[in-house]
Amino acid sequence: MIRLTSELEQGLRRLLDGGDPVVIAERVRRLPPDQIAELMAALHPADSADVLEELSAAEQRAVVDELDAEDAADLLSYLDVEDAAEVLASFSSAQQAEILGEMEPDDAADILAELPELQVEAALAGMDSADAGQVRSLLNYDEESAGGLMTRHAVTLRANASIGQALGLLRSLPLDEEIAYYLFVTDDAGSLVGVVSLRQLVTADLTTPLSQIMNSDVISVPVDADQEVAAQTLARYDLNVLPTVDAEGRLVGVITADDVIDVIQEEATEDIYRLAGLDIEEDVYRSIFLTARQRLIYLGVNLPTALLAAFVVSIFEPTLERLAVLAVFMPIIAGMGGNAGIQTLTLIVRSIALGEVGLRDAWRTLRREALVGLINGLVFGLLIGGIAILWEGQPLLGLVAAAAMLLNMICAAIAGTIVPLLLKRIGADPALASGVLVTTFTDITGYFCFLGLATLLLRQLTAV
Amino acid sequence: MIRLTSELEQGLRRLLDGGDPVVIAERVRRLPPDQIAELMAALHPADSADVLEELSAAEQRAVVDELDAEDAADLLSYLDVEDAAEVLASFSSAQQAEILGEMEPDDAADILAELPELQVEAALAGMDSADAGQVRSLLNYDEESAGGLMTRHAVTLRANASIGQALGLLRSLPLDEEIAYYLFVTDDAGSLVGVVSLRQLVTADLTTPLSQIMNSDVISVPVDADQEVAAQTLARYDLNVLPTVDAEGRLVGVITADDVIDVIQEEATEDIYRLAGLDIEEDVYRSIFLTARQRLIYLGVNLPTALLAAFVVSIFEPTLERLAVLAVFMPIIAGMGGNAGIQTLTLIVRSIALGEVGLRDAWRTLRREALVGLINGLVFGLLIGGIAILWEGQPLLGLVAAAAMLLNMICAAIAGTIVPLLLKRIGADPALASGVLVTTFTDITGYFCFLGLATLLLRQLTAV
Repeated sequence: MIRLTSELEQGLRRLLDGGDPVVIAERVRRLPPDQIAELMAALHPADSADVLEELSAAEQRAVVDELDAEDAADLLSYLDVEDAAEVLASFSSAQQAEILGEMEPDDAADILAELPELQVEAALAGMDSADAGQVRSLLNYDEESAGGLMTRHAVTLRANASIGQALGLLRSLPLDEEIAYYLFVTDDAGSLVGVVSLRQLVTADLTTPLSQIMNSDVISVPVDADQEVAAQTLARYDLNVLPTVDAEGRLVGVITADDVIDVIQEEATEDIYRLAGLDIEEDVYRSIFLTARQRLIYLGVNLPTALLAAFVVSIFEPTLERLAVLAVFMPIIAGMGGNAGIQTLTLIVRSIALGEVGLRDAWRTLRREALVGLINGLVFGLLIGGIAILWEGQPLLGLVAAAAMLLNMICAAIAGTIVPLLLKRIGADPALASGVLVTTFTDITGYFCFLGLATLLLRQLTAV
Repeated sequence: MIRLTSELEQGLRRLLDGGDPVVIAERVRRLPPDQIAELMAALHPADSADVLEELSAAEQRAVVDELDAEDAADLLSYLDVEDAAEVLASFSSAQQAEILGEMEPDDAADILAELPELQVEAALAGMDSADAGQVRSLLNYDEESAGGLMTRHAVTLRANASIGQALGLLRSLPLDEEIAYYLFVTDDAGSLVGVVSLRQLVTADLTTPLSQIMNSDVISVPVDADQEVAAQTLARYDLNVLPTVDAEGRLVGVITADDVIDVIQEEATEDIYRLAGLDIEEDVYRSIFLTARQRLIYLGVNLPTALLAAFVVSIFEPTLERLAVLAVFMPIIAGMGGNAGIQTLTLIVRSIALGEVGLRDAWRTLRREALVGLINGLVFGLLIGGIAILWEGQPLLGLVAAAAMLLNMICAAIAGTIVPLLLKRIGADPALASGVLVTTFTDITGYFCFLGLATLLLRQLTAV
């Protein structure tokens, strides 16, 4: 049992009840590192990691230094990869090797990938050679691929092995190893041919060969597939584990559902941030100057297009001089078009991400969105036309506003559909077609349609 | 073995290779229903469901009618809940009961929740009473709660039971039942006190009591917790299964990682769509009129605020009449502010969803965003001021544009932060603060700052 001061105990309770890690960290900070370490060891590592992230780098190091290698490994596995790498880097190679040895190979590889190569080699040299081999092989895979997501801890047997042999193998493995609750069955060449659940193992006769009870419809992904493909495959078929195979169909590793959950959260955040023109690394704890600089870049991309929109307006300055009321209606046409464009863009980007829309659907999708734009353009065109007539008493102004609204809504639908599909076509991320670009596009078309039509009809408008 | 025509076999291959379900459906449609059913039975139900969704309601019914109850149950479990309910409703109560009996209770409850109560009662009456009881109890939970997500198939034992007894219980359960790879341990009052993995069961001695090997740090959620809380808990602690408990701490059911993946996808889509003012039910296959109607509603909400922005411009019509060049720069100030506001809004909404920001961080977050707004406002203010001076040769116009840009960037940061936090405070979904509203707000402040300052300085400006 650990000795908790009453203050600490309260803090601990509040933390576990979803309390504020900042407050806990403040409280924790006043304790000596050995007491902090005790507290950390008593908490779930996910909760300890939250507290740790509120401490300074020096404090983090002092706390982790007090933990035994196993607790340190657990804690680092739940930290942000960058933070974990920073803490780990502050230890000696021998200590690093000890901590990494207690970690799951996939977590160890993720953290090592952040460190300089010399340091990685020194740490791996100090590890048990089998563990080091597993980590080393994982380091070869792209972080964003199925290989970067998997662990090597797959339990594999030949198809002619018996259930008794399988159970014997299981008993020989260390209990704290993260193993999937499935055994994988391979043929003599090492190709994946079946899967057996632990459930099946305990409910059949010990002498039965695995080939008799295995499920031979195994769904797998190539080890070099994109992590998003792996995540979608596991999600689509409601799997708990997804094996990865090499080009020859040999089992390489296993991806588990909890890894996929992280990928899905990450990819969703990426889509959301890209649509808004935010850097994917952004979070509310990032330094203000780094944040401002990154947002400046995205906003800066928009400036030339905003100037283009302004240039379109400037073409019609003589018209505006004669009829300033146009400046009143101009933002409505542009703004409504921008919002409609963002609706279409968001739907298309998300549908591509979820695998519901591909290039094959381009024509059908474009027709559908253009029709929706036509309907909404008619409705809002009539509305804005009516409002313009009632407000300003000029039927021709109403007509111009209505026609411009209709045209801009259709342009918005077309831009919102075509831009992400084109990006997909050239192999870029469709979410790069951020709302910023689409709204600037609809600004330009909105101003051009509205002011252009007004200029054509100027004589009639001013004559009223 | 099923007899595949060569055309069908090709289609099947292409489908499994990620081919187009529309093309497959076209091909499938030309076959008699019994051959379609054979094809469906040979595919993974997730793939069959994709093909089925391309067929008409009558065709869907005809195909499912050809399947045996087990295949039909599998297929319906992978269909959209609404589609599955529609197909199911077209069968007799006796057939419904047979199919539902082959389904997991949580899937059955999800589908039944879409049907009228009388039909539900008739179907449940025809089912095995134990199965019906499980489904009935699941129907009592809110679809959006942990209870709506869980299955009842948790294997529970008392703490004094031996491993041998646990294995005996496992062997007595039907093999096709979806069970979690964990056994749950309860005390005499039925409270959840521990968890044992199948892995532990097969690696320890048969006479060992569960209390000796169980892990007593069980993480669980209340059965009436929001499904998002359940999903975040499972994701945070990297769990494969998450038990749900009632107010007395008794085990009620189990949530598995694959259910959580669906929730996370759903909630991410919801956040993305809400930010863009899209209905959460929207997808690219929805009817055009339904889509147009729903988008009209969201765009319609924006119209009064767009009119308000127009009204602000109209206040300054006399100024614009004298200085039409203001209409050229006006959209740049408003547009850049809108984009900056959407960046802030998106970050805050997503951070709230991921549990990274709460009300306790309001002040810190507001200060941070306001500072970022200040920095970006200064940079773009200087830029736009310089451009105005170079373009129009009027230093005062440059000054007005620069000051308005700075003010609007700060307003954008404040609105983007406060609106979602306020919504959270009053218990509403922060994502309801869609980009539509924030950009209209920044339009208003942008026009007001720019035209207001210009009016104040009008005499000097026109004198140049």
